[in-house]
Amino acid sequence: MQLHLSTWAEIEQYLARSRTIVIPIGSNEQHGPTGLLGTDWLCPQIIAGEAEKQADILVAPTFNIGMAQHHLGFAGTISLRPSTFIAAIGDWVRSLAGHGFEKLLFLNGHGGNVASIDAAFSELYAEASFARRRAGFALKLCNWWDLPGVGELARDQFPTGHGSHATPSEIAITQWAFPDARKHADYAPRIAPSGPIREALDFRARYPDGRIGSDPGLATPEKGAALVRLAAQSLVRELEAYSREPMPD
Amino acid sequence: MQLHLSTWAEIEQYLARSRTIVIPIGSNEQHGPTGLLGTDWLCPQIIAGEAEKQADILVAPTFNIGMAQHHLGFAGTISLRPSTFIAAIGDWVRSLAGHGFEKLLFLNGHGGNVASIDAAFSELYAEASFARRRAGFALKLCNWWDLPGVGELARDQFPTGHGSHATPSEIAITQWAFPDARKHADYAPRIAPSGPIREALDFRARYPDGRIGSDPGLATPEKGAALVRLAAQSLVRELEAYSREPMPD
Amino acid sequence: MQLHLSTWAEIEQYLARSRTIVIPIGSNEQHGPTGLLGTDWLCPQIIAGEAEKQADILVAPTFNIGMAQHHLGFAGTISLRPSTFIAAIGDWVRSLAGHGFEKLLFLNGHGGNVASIDAAFSELYAEASFARRRAGFALKLCNWWDLPGVGELARDQFPTGHGSHATPSEIAITQWAFPDARKHADYAPRIAPSGPIREALDFRARYPDGRIGSDPGLATPEKGAALVRLAAQSLVRELEAYSREPMPD
Amino acid sequence: MQLHLSTWAEIEQYLARSRTIVIPIGSNEQHGPTGLLGTDWLCPQIIAGEAEKQADILVAPTFNIGMAQHHLGFAGTISLRPSTFIAAIGDWVRSLAGHGFEKLLFLNGHGGNVASIDAAFSELYAEASFARRRAGFALKLCNWWDLPGVGELARDQFPTGHGSHATPSEIAITQWAFPDARKHADYAPRIAPSGPIREALDFRARYPDGRIGSDPGLATPEKGAALVRLAAQSLVRELEAYSREPMPD
Amino acid sequence: MQLHLSTWAEIEQYLARSRTIVIPIGSNEQHGPTGLLGTDWLCPQIIAGEAEKQADILVAPTFNIGMAQHHLGFAGTISLRPSTFIAAIGDWVRSLAGHGFEKLLFLNGHGGNVASIDAAFSELYAEASFARRRAGFALKLCNWWDLPGVGELARDQFPTGHGSHATPSEIAITQWAFPDARKHADYAPRIAPSGPIREALDFRARYPDGRIGSDPGLATPEKGAALVRLAAQSLVRELEAYSREPMPD
Amino acid sequence: MQLHLSTWAEIEQYLARSRTIVIPIGSNEQHGPTGLLGTDWLCPQIIAGEAEKQADILVAPTFNIGMAQHHLGFAGTISLRPSTFIAAIGDWVRSLAGHGFEKLLFLNGHGGNVASIDAAFSELYAEASFARRRAGFALKLCNWWDLPGVGELARDQFPTGHGSHATPSEIAITQWAFPDARKHADYAPRIAPSGPIREALDFRARYPDGRIGSDPGLATPEKGAALVRLAAQSLVRELEAYSREPMPD
Repeated sequence: MQLHLSTWAEIEQYLARSRTIVIPIGSNEQHGPTGLLGTDWLCPQIIAGEAEKQADILVAPTFNIGMAQHHLGFAGTISLRPSTFIAAIGDWVRSLAGHGFEKLLFLNGHGGNVASIDAAFSELYAEASFARRRAGFALKLCNWWDLPGVGELARDQFPTGHGSHATPSEIAITQWAFPDARKHADYAPRIAPSGPIREALDFRARYPDGRIGSDPGLATPEKGAALVRLAAQSLVRELEAYSREPMPD
Repeated sequence: MQLHLSTWAEIEQYLARSRTIVIPIGSNEQHGPTGLLGTDWLCPQIIAGEAEKQADILVAPTFNIGMAQHHLGFAGTISLRPSTFIAAIGDWVRSLAGHGFEKLLFLNGHGGNVASIDAAFSELYAEASFARRRAGFALKLCNWWDLPGVGELARDQFPTGHGSHATPSEIAITQWAFPDARKHADYAPRIAPSGPIREALDFRARYPDGRIGSDPGLATPEKGAALVRLAAQSLVRELEAYSREPMPD
Repeated sequence: MQLHLSTWAEIEQYLARSRTIVIPIGSNEQHGPTGLLGTDWLCPQIIAGEAEKQADILVAPTFNIGMAQHHLGFAGTISLRPSTFIAAIGDWVRSLAGHGFEKLLFLNGHGGNVASIDAAFSELYAEASFARRRAGFALKLCNWWDLPGVGELARDQFPTGHGSHATPSEIAITQWAFPDARKHADYAPRIAPSGPIREALDFRARYPDGRIGSDPGLATPEKGAALVRLAAQSLVRELEAYSREPMPD
Repeated sequence: MQLHLSTWAEIEQYLARSRTIVIPIGSNEQHGPTGLLGTDWLCPQIIAGEAEKQADILVAPTFNIGMAQHHLGFAGTISLRPSTFIAAIGDWVRSLAGHGFEKLLFLNGHGGNVASIDAAFSELYAEASFARRRAGFALKLCNWWDLPGVGELARDQFPTGHGSHATPSEIAITQWAFPDARKHADYAPRIAPSGPIREALDFRARYPDGRIGSDPGLATPEKGAALVRLAAQSLVRELEAYSREPMPD
Repeated sequence: MQLHLSTWAEIEQYLARSRTIVIPIGSNEQHGPTGLLGTDWLCPQIIAGEAEKQADILVAPTFNIGMAQHHLGFAGTISLRPSTFIAAIGDWVRSLAGHGFEKLLFLNGHGGNVASIDAAFSELYAEASFARRRAGFALKLCNWWDLPGVGELARDQFPTGHGSHATPSEIAITQWAFPDARKHADYAPRIAPSGPIREALDFRARYPDGRIGSDPGLATPEKGAALVRLAAQSLVRELEAYSREPMPD
Repeated sequence: MQLHLSTWAEIEQYLARSRTIVIPIGSNEQHGPTGLLGTDWLCPQIIAGEAEKQADILVAPTFNIGMAQHHLGFAGTISLRPSTFIAAIGDWVRSLAGHGFEKLLFLNGHGGNVASIDAAFSELYAEASFARRRAGFALKLCNWWDLPGVGELARDQFPTGHGSHATPSEIAITQWAFPDARKHADYAPRIAPSGPIREALDFRARYPDGRIGSDPGLATPEKGAALVRLAAQSLVRELEAYSREPMPD
């Protein structure tokens, strides 16, 4: 069930049977010479979209712009600062919790988001903690590549050249979902360098075509299909377990 | 051209021929008994998506959560506070202007966004104004229903019962784009009441099913198709004119 | 009744008979070659001051610095950024609502304030909406030129050359109220150009003497007197209607 | 010279001969059983208004709402929080410094403002200090009762019962300036108690009629006239000295 | 009793017998040619540390970075902006008040902190005042040199050359506490100049070696010992009186 | 070399030979029935203090209050919200970078700080990235237990019952450094439970005595001595490597 394609009355009915919602969250940023700028928000959106075809889960609109300050040296990147990101996640959560959602799972597609999302969770919990009252909701962050089994599959598919940015696994997913947007480009070296992540100009100097440690040419739509299939199944199970988890008094 | 389905290198090439970008912006909020929660961000996304099939324009990812505090009394609404909205628009604009975009057009689908978007523009311009320097970019807000000819067509299609929230014109557009998500519900009175907009509980007391002044049952996918076709054409012309507009020294 | 010339005990007595207050709000900014920098806060202050001589209404101190970032290229302009303006309006409203005022009317004298004031209202309402509680107060924005009958009178007085900044109507009002501060200057063209409003340097390049679309030389103190008389009467009636308006449970 | 009764061109001419400006700043808050709510912003406005009749000085509009959180338990008080106050003072100063003003003197009428104004100055200076550059302007805070000779005169006029809030000296000034707004009320004890200042309800419990240590019944318009006359002369001399003060490279 | 060397259970027991806590607060900033960068946070830490050996008081961790923007022109200075300082003090107080502490005394070692700490107190009280509720806690700022008797002793010890920054009294205290860190340097003039405090580069131009009005060479560890002994005794008495002070209903 | 025991001139000399500084950072929060509230800021302070005895490194004052909102249900915990923490880290870094420090290493003692510190780094880098300029400094976060060899030693020392909060390794370090503050208490079960971390009341319900997964009774001062010795050596090597690391143009 897609929230944005539902009426408010349908959501009210959903809330009578479940208090759980999944929010795809990612980033819009350069993904090397062949990756789509939308890769990091498209992947969780695709996986959650597959999952909701198989089970009675509710998928929120995609939070599509995240924390990608280090990619701003490449055209097309759009980033929030962490402080803005924290404020915006806060308003999303307060909106949803106010409707009665108690278990919110952010399905994340961008490693660079993790710290700021965690900080946003603490900022929200702190409102309750400083007031010495219960929050009334639980927040969970889950990267799609950390869903049970998914990392293993990606390692099987790409024993070398997976890397950490513009990876063949995420590019494979977008190739499967958007076959018409598959890109081709020459690049060298075959496997990109690795190193620290700092500000945008430092990043561009270290990683001239935008990749980190990856060989995105290994991606195929077929591998993407397998990743999506497995990730969607895992997500459904994660949501079931999360829904059943009791909250202490 | 959809930014999120492009590579950074493709955007760099686009910037060599144009400095203009359109950003669909809306809100995710209740739209009465039959309207989709995503109506206000889907409409500008649909119109911009049609326009980019016809002309060499660039469409940014959709800014899908806007200022809808007054709708929070209805399940499924997600809102930013104005201050958060202003901060987030600021980071989007700074990201894009840093790449060299000079003419940014926000194609808006939600009346409740207008004041906060205007305030966000002033907040951005003020950075330049307090420093007594040029901003280097121009910002324009355009509601899709204000695109030349579109308001007239909607008035022809819906001489009565158009109203101002959950209007048959916006619902017609989503019916055309998402035929499988067309909803049916009984509601009364046929034309909803009108009045002031204040906080969420006041809103729900005044407008119990969420509509303001509208009869959304007048919507048909065919009317939606006509609206989208005209709006897309108008948008292309607006972007051409905006691109040609000189900036004084 | 002027709040600043009253004691706290007198305000307590006023609150026993009325929960309504009018707050003149404007801006301190250049008004062309002959207009006073204070024009936009003086006009609502003058009108509200006339109104309180005729009826038992309460006038707050004037909020004299508004959102005028685009005028900062001209000496003497003082502006808040929208975010500061929103914060300050918030504290004014919270102060007054805490005393029991339920109907707050901001009588505005500056078009550039409108979006930020509206955003400030939403920011305030959102506190209640996110908490799913009633706000306990209503906020209304009314530009003095939109008071019933006033726009018509101005159009009769100035069929051409009224324009939108440094207008003869606002200048006429200050001429009537401050006859010793009437200014004279040569300017050309007689009617100033019109166009978009962006950052301060762009503004000054487009509107070299500060006017937009106006011929302020048409102003006379007599026309100002007529405008003030009518506006004050209209304001009293607006406040009476606003006071009577019920608030839904 | 009153800034708000001048044109931008007149301010440009003033800047050619002086870089100094005085900004009356106060608070709108209860002043005991007989004091006006506007006392603390009216006093510096009155004094600066007298001073500008005697010398070529420039007086900005009055910053009329300050930091008066502790008075919010009494009807009619309007307060900014310190954080809002600091932000607003920041925008005033940035506006004025951008025009070329180098010596800004805030003539203050409210003791409760002092810490927040000082903090605002440090916040502004810090922008330059963190960037290791010169600020380009100097900021000075001067309470009207600390102008040379004024405190001595007040002590002579009111050897007992002056106190620290709703003092006979400030009330005398408003009696002189607004004779029609002179108030009468019974109160007891004759001299109000003194003690710490904390939140509003604590304040009202300690100081039930709003006075601290004062007997405002000692005020007369004649004493007010003498205070204003002396304060205005002192202010002119302070501004002359401040204007001559060199700034190190 | 040092909070940081206690367990949470020990603090819970302390709260059963006292609701008072002392928080050493200072700054880390240049202190002239011979003073330690930590002088201003070490002094209150040393004094509070002596006091807790003599009486059953509770000492919080030291708030070691304060508002020292004007010292940023000298290497080693670390400063918060006032707005950051206010936010941080706010979180400290909310944390402690939530545990049941009702009387918080900030023992301050830096004059430049005073305004921002006072503003922080008002920001905290304002939360209660805007909501028209009691705060539930009292906040007191006490500079160590203002403890009863301490200023007199310092004036006796240093009849000339005490000054206001890098004073011999504060340097004597650190010499006593950290004899191995005693520094020697030539400087001239013997007594440093005095004047206004503005941004960092202005400060460095006026006070080239960092001192204001002081001759730190007058300091000796013996004088420091006497100051600490007296200040610790005074602090204990201040805390006893503060603890006994009733709070009105 | 301890920054707070140095003069500004000594820091200027240090900067001539090194641009690297280590900042101990932790949290003040409950550490179970026997752990000190200061454990998480004392550990990095102790380790850095040992390291600076062995090598020419510079140690900043300890950032002693971090992000511990989840511990606020236990007396004595003091926490910043993530947004405050980010602002404060920002001002520390801007202060130090302005003096010429280029390599800043935060030696962290609290797992709950990690996300907010990372977010703070991104907030700082983003200032440069949005402006498309170089930052001029590098930021590194290093938990003391992740220093090379330290985790292995702790696993050898505590093959079971190490856990993740109030661990025997951190308690051993404070036992070694503060032998007089060693605490004893009964607790059960021997090894505390594990689970998710949310708001403070949820935390206290899950972990009634404050421990997570640990048996702190395994700690001894001797084990602490070994941990400190190894960690200090590792820290020196880390700082040497960090100092040598080139920054790309």
